[in-house]
Amino acid sequence: MISPDIENLIALLAKLPGLGPRSARRAVLHLIKRREALGAPLTKAMTNVLETVKTCSQCGNLDTVDPCPLCTDPKRDAGLICVVEDVADLWALERAKVFQGRYHVLGGVLSALDGVGPEDLNIPALIERTTRGGIREVILANSATVDGQTTAHYLTDLLAGSGVEISELAHGVPVGGELDYLDDGTLGAALKDRRPV
Amino acid sequence: MISPDIENLIALLAKLPGLGPRSARRAVLHLIKRREALGAPLTKAMTNVLETVKTCSQCGNLDTVDPCPLCTDPKRDAGLICVVEDVADLWALERAKVFQGRYHVLGGVLSALDGVGPEDLNIPALIERTTRGGIREVILANSATVDGQTTAHYLTDLLAGSGVEISELAHGVPVGGELDYLDDGTLGAALKDRRPV
Repeated sequence: MISPDIENLIALLAKLPGLGPRSARRAVLHLIKRREALGAPLTKAMTNVLETVKTCSQCGNLDTVDPCPLCTDPKRDAGLICVVEDVADLWALERAKVFQGRYHVLGGVLSALDGVGPEDLNIPALIERTTRGGIREVILANSATVDGQTTAHYLTDLLAGSGVEISELAHGVPVGGELDYLDDGTLGAALKDRRPV
Repeated sequence: MISPDIENLIALLAKLPGLGPRSARRAVLHLIKRREALGAPLTKAMTNVLETVKTCSQCGNLDTVDPCPLCTDPKRDAGLICVVEDVADLWALERAKVFQGRYHVLGGVLSALDGVGPEDLNIPALIERTTRGGIREVILANSATVDGQTTAHYLTDLLAGSGVEISELAHGVPVGGELDYLDDGTLGAALKDRRPV
């Protein structure tokens, strides 16, 4: 018989993406063994984040302050909005340090299969931001999946009359990628959008 | 720029076995999105376990009470001790519901490479338990690895004069296993220990 308290913790941890019952058990033992060095700081950090992190009312990013630092940073280009599906995508762009404008997090993709319609996404706030003025360009950084591209098309139609420039990410060979391992769609896009050297 | 509080939580979560930076990021977003349903209960369960769980002074098991319920359960055979390397091994045996005696958790294996000697393991308590009397048999449920078997040999020598019967787990074909996929060592052991039908 395993302690019900420990069983309960294992069951909850196993609900995290990337963890199953087996790795949750290992994680719990690891936490108990490293109580001072890892267990206590992790519990404290988790409590802190869950209590203080909120969704930015402007862009949908997650931060302890609202509006988030990305929306208020004067060094970032306020005329450029990059639309992403999820906070994870925003984090990926920030880690890459390749974008110095503002963001807009949709909170998902349109999906007939999953019953996600425009009203379920953070779209009204995007329309409001673009019509308020001061926006030069909207970059649609949607995933290159069917649902992602459907969402991008929907947004393109919606923003068409706003006078704002709309762009999307380039498709092509990933940097460091070998042709041999690429799918047909990527190869086709890379060939179609070839550029003079 | 990602919120330093969130970055800190990701870094701590990434230290858990089976999680890396990428899955830790996904886990944190999952926790924030499911704050009420998962985040809060998980934080509470973690705080509770880290505050209340202790090592059983008799067997080395982890539980909220000391001695643990396995050591005090009158329905379990007190004359039979199963020696395991880790609490995870105890859990595996308990899940399988195949053993109804008591346990003894060593807390590791002897390893010259990692500098783990007999004094680093829960061995004195095992000697004390076997010499105190009332123990009929000690089952060495060590791993079938080099270090596990070294530890088992060491314990066999140590307990040799105690008058207690010493046994080890059977080696052979795992139930449900196909011969084709088994290693030579297991096949050899299965053949050597063959039994009449």
